[in-house]
Order: sequence, then structure tokens, then C-alpha cells
Amino acid sequence: MDLLDEVRAAIGPLARAAMAAARSRQDLMTKPRGSLGVLEEVSIRLAGLAGRCPPPLPAPAAVAVFAGDHGVHAQGVTPWPQEVTAQMVANFLAGGAVVNAFAAQTGAEVVVVDVGVRADLELVPGLLPRKITAGTADFTAGPALTREQASAAIMVGVEVASDLVAAGNNCLLTGDMGIANTTASAALVCAFTGRDPAEVTGYGTGIDPATHARKVAVVRTGLALHRPDPADPVGVLAAFGGLEHAALAGFILGAAARRTPVILDGVIAGAGALAAVALAPEAVECCIAGHRSVEPGHAATLHHLGLRPLVDLELRLGEGTGALLALPIVQCAARALRDVATFDSAGVTDKT
Amino acid sequence: MDLLDEVRAAIGPLARAAMAAARSRQDLMTKPRGSLGVLEEVSIRLAGLAGRCPPPLPAPAAVAVFAGDHGVHAQGVTPWPQEVTAQMVANFLAGGAVVNAFAAQTGAEVVVVDVGVRADLELVPGLLPRKITAGTADFTAGPALTREQASAAIMVGVEVASDLVAAGNNCLLTGDMGIANTTASAALVCAFTGRDPAEVTGYGTGIDPATHARKVAVVRTGLALHRPDPADPVGVLAAFGGLEHAALAGFILGAAARRTPVILDGVIAGAGALAAVALAPEAVECCIAGHRSVEPGHAATLHHLGLRPLVDLELRLGEGTGALLALPIVQCAARALRDVATFDSAGVTDKT
Repeated sequence: MDLLDEVRAAIGPLARAAMAAARSRQDLMTKPRGSLGVLEEVSIRLAGLAGRCPPPLPAPAAVAVFAGDHGVHAQGVTPWPQEVTAQMVANFLAGGAVVNAFAAQTGAEVVVVDVGVRADLELVPGLLPRKITAGTADFTAGPALTREQASAAIMVGVEVASDLVAAGNNCLLTGDMGIANTTASAALVCAFTGRDPAEVTGYGTGIDPATHARKVAVVRTGLALHRPDPADPVGVLAAFGGLEHAALAGFILGAAARRTPVILDGVIAGAGALAAVALAPEAVECCIAGHRSVEPGHAATLHHLGLRPLVDLELRLGEGTGALLALPIVQCAARALRDVATFDSAGVTDKT
Repeated sequence: MDLLDEVRAAIGPLARAAMAAARSRQDLMTKPRGSLGVLEEVSIRLAGLAGRCPPPLPAPAAVAVFAGDHGVHAQGVTPWPQEVTAQMVANFLAGGAVVNAFAAQTGAEVVVVDVGVRADLELVPGLLPRKITAGTADFTAGPALTREQASAAIMVGVEVASDLVAAGNNCLLTGDMGIANTTASAALVCAFTGRDPAEVTGYGTGIDPATHARKVAVVRTGLALHRPDPADPVGVLAAFGGLEHAALAGFILGAAARRTPVILDGVIAGAGALAAVALAPEAVECCIAGHRSVEPGHAATLHHLGLRPLVDLELRLGEGTGALLALPIVQCAARALRDVATFDSAGVTDKT
């Protein structure tokens, strides 16, 4: 049994007894039954994941921003130069990006993981150097990665998740950076959900219609070339990349193996989650959809995973920003389950 | 000029120069233009309200929970006994309710204002005793309040807002408690928006279809009896109550006069906001819709006010819970505008 098989074997179902206890407690709390809506479901899920009620508060929390470059950038799928990946990594490490502002506001730690940035990066605190290769190959010409590279990137994610949980985090959040990574995401979403490229390929960070048409064609070319088999998730990740998608898949598997909730950001995380769930279906139980981005592939992904996003505010930034907006909501859901008085304990009359 | 006129006179438009500065800064920040979606609009609004860019962070923050009872309770519009209003106030003051859990998690202060609870309440820290009268009269038999009582309740809200801002809060949140207050809300929403009672009367905290039919009929009876004139907001508030709705209207006016953002909770706050905006149209500029509740009257209210809710998670609890869920989102919007580096300052290449 290899390392990935060990991780997959450690992933199990939610604990039904803890979920039942949480459901019962929600019905005794001093509020109309069901009045916390989706937050009641979140709290019950957290109890099932932790195997106890109340579950631990999802704090402290850490967002891991996996960064990688994409060979498909050569196909002209984005107006952003490839060096922006490394520049934004430097911005994250200097604390200047939106993910830093949101993390500071919500009390989360930011960890940046170089899993495949093309440039050599300076080693500074906050950066985990885990480069598998300096960017993927162009998936319209051949596989983006070897199977071995894809597997190694998955294991990077597993280990980052394990280390963050071992360091005391009770909640993980996904982040990502990689110019052209919505193109790889679209290909992955098609491969795992069977959707057509025209349905799930979006405007990413903002492209013109001509670039969008080219992007759809690039995804279609890749699918025709690789004929991906969704039952072979490592093969799919190798076909299209990116390194950050593979690492995100591993990050989710690692969180699931440690029975720790992971709040997903947007379509990049969603594509990684599709791979994770293809590798270990019960991994979906640890996933909370932080938000829904405007990328059409994201809605398709959430539908396929059966996840309802907590925030829906037309974000299309990535970095982990949408996940961070949802963090306080998840924490409130857990806090209410833990702290709110019951009708009996508070001396409040129940409805007739 | 009476006190209310003074407050109305202090309410003005957003500062266009500060908004333009915020819009420009959003376009220079190290992110794709527009990629923060609705949060960009929120940050621009906050700048316009403050009259400077960046605006102050919306922290510290306080949620004011206005509590009152309703004579229309006698019409059998809810299965909850009327004494639950006072019992829940005691629960808020003991820290046992969901509003307390959410406020603790998001770092907001909770202030409870007795503006019209039927029972005599024990004076304890955290309770502001501002009772105008011990609950409204049944609006199906006559006016819920006198005009003087409605005006006095409005001024309670104005003063609570002013005091909280004077105490250093940069963000206010609305909260409410009052058994039967969704019935008064439905009547107010009809009066101010012209909708039919069947469209906007919901299931509140959970009622059966027979009770719902009675509730719709009660609202219809009240509208026929009082023939409310939306151009006379004090008269509308006097017709239907509740005291907490009038106080919430004043709270919003007070926040607007102090140019402080106020995050609205659900349909009770929304009905209060309709009254506030009828009194001073520019008061809407300080309002941020925290969430959308499942009450149908709330969607109608938000549509009428032109506000987009930040959270939409099927809550129907009140107390300020939906507003508190939105607080970290509003804070993140402001924090990003203040802290995020520009392309120039971070050395990130802009898109071609």
C-alpha cells in the first residue's frame, strides 16, 4: 500500500451518533426549530466529522495557498503574463494581497506553498518550498505532468494538511495562485463531470470574447487529446495539471483523513475537490463550499459535489478569499451549537 | 423644528469624491479589476458614507436588540406565548441566545433595549430601559400606538444609535425580539410597498397553514381599518406598531445622521428601514442588508429598498443573527480597500 492508499484508507464516513446528538441539540436550543437554516446543517456536519457534539470550534484556522504555473499559458488563454504567479506569491509573503487582508480580518494564518511556480523563489518565512517541477507542460501538446509528478503534488497537499492539523488548526481553507489555472480547472471539471467545455469555461480574471473562444477551444483540444477517464483521477490530473490542483486534491484528502473541516474557495479548489472525491468519495464529507464564484464551471462543480456555497457575492479572485469570507459563518454555526442555552436551561417557554 | 426633524436634516448623500477615490483604488489593487464583486461596491459605499478613502474599519461594532410586545398577538397569529419576549430578553442578558454566540464569535457588543416589553423587566447590566408602553394595542381593533408613542419610540432608536457611535462604534447592527412581530412587519411592508398581504406574510418562526391563513387575514383587516398612507411614516408606525419597528427606524436614522453604516438583520429590520427611508430617503445609503431571511416580506422589502443581501442561508431567527453573519464580510471589504497593495507598490505586472 503506497502513501496515497494509506491516506485514502483513513477517510471514513461521518459519525452518525454525533450528528444525531447535534440535531437533537439544535431542536432544544432557544430558537424556533430550523430557524438557523443552512447553519444547522453545517453544525451537524461538523459534529459528524469530529465524532462528538459539540464539535471543536473551527479555530484556529489556516489557509494554504498552493501556487503553480501552467504550460497552457502559451496558448494565449489569459492577458496576464506568466510571471505574475511569482509576483503574487511575493505579494502574499509581503502581506499585500486580498487573501492577507481577509485572513488578518478573520484571524486565519496564511501559508504559501510553491508546488510548481516556474520561477525560482526566494526562501522567506511563510513560504513552503515544495516545487515538484517548474510549471506544467502545455496540455494541448501532451500530458501536463507525469503520473509521478501528479502523485507527488497530491502528497505535498496531504502533508501540508497533516502538518497544519498537527500544529493545532481545527479548520483548513484552500487557496490558490497560478496564471491560466482557470483553463486547467475547466478541463478538469469537464473530465470529472462530463460537461462540455462551452458550459464550464468562464472569463476567469477577465478576458475578451476572442480569448474566451480560444480558451474553450483549448479545453476541447485537451479533452480530445487525452480522453480522460474520471475513474483514474491521477491520470486526469497528470493530463491537465495543474500542480496546485493536484496539491489541493491532496490537501482535501489530508484534511479528510484527519477529520478536519476544509473550506473550499472557488473553481480551482472545486476542480481539486472533484479529483479528491474521485480518489476517496467520503472526502466530500469534510468539504464546506465557502462561496460560489462567477466562473460557470464552479456552479457545475458544486452541483456535482452536492455542496451548497455559504457566500455568493460575485467574487472571482481566488487566493482563498471566498473561503475566508465563509470562515466566520462556519465558526458561528459551531459556536451556536456549543454555547446556546436550551429552553429548559434558560427557562424559556417552548411554543404550544 | 422638533428632534426628529433635526435628525432628518442631518442626513445627506454619500460623498462622491470619496466614492470615486475608492473606485479608483479598487482598480489599482493587486487583483483583477472587479474581482471582489459585491465587496467592491460595499467598500465604495463605506467610503462615501465616511467621506474619506479608505473609510474607517467597521469596528468596533454593536448590535442593538430592540424588544417589544404586540397586541395583535391576541389574534392567534403565532403558537408562541407572549411571555417569551421577556424570557428571551433575559436569555440575551444572560448570554444564552444565538445572538450572543454570534456576537461573541464576531467581536460585537450586544445591547438590549426594552422599548415596549409587556412585562416589567429587572434592571441588569446590558439592558437599556426605554419602555414607551407595555406592548402595542391590537391593530385589528384600533391603532397599535398613538402618534406620540410612535414618535417617542423612534427617538429611542435615534438616541441608542447616537450613544453607540459616541461610544466609539464604527458599525451598528440591528436586532429585534417580539413575539408576533412578523405580523406587524407584514402590515408595514404592505403599507410601504403596496404589496398584498398574501404576498408578504410568511410563516414566521414556524406556523401551520391555518395560522398562516389567519395571519394573512389579520394583516388584511388591519390595512382595511387603517388605510395607511406611506407618505405619513409616523402614522403607519402608529397604526401597526411595533415599538421595536419604530425604534429600529430611529436607529437607522440615527446611524445615517452620524454617517455610520448599519447592517440590517431580517424582515423586522427591513420593515423598520422602510419607515426610516420614508422619513429620510437618503437614510438608505447607510444601510447594508446583512442577509435575506426566508420570510417573503423580506425579499419584497429588499427589492423596494434596492439592497442586495450579503448572506442568504435560509435563516428566520431574527435577534440580529443575520446581520452578525454579514459583519465580518463588511469588515473584510473595508480591510481590503485599506490594506491591499497596488500593482505599482507590489511590483506586480498588470494584465496586457
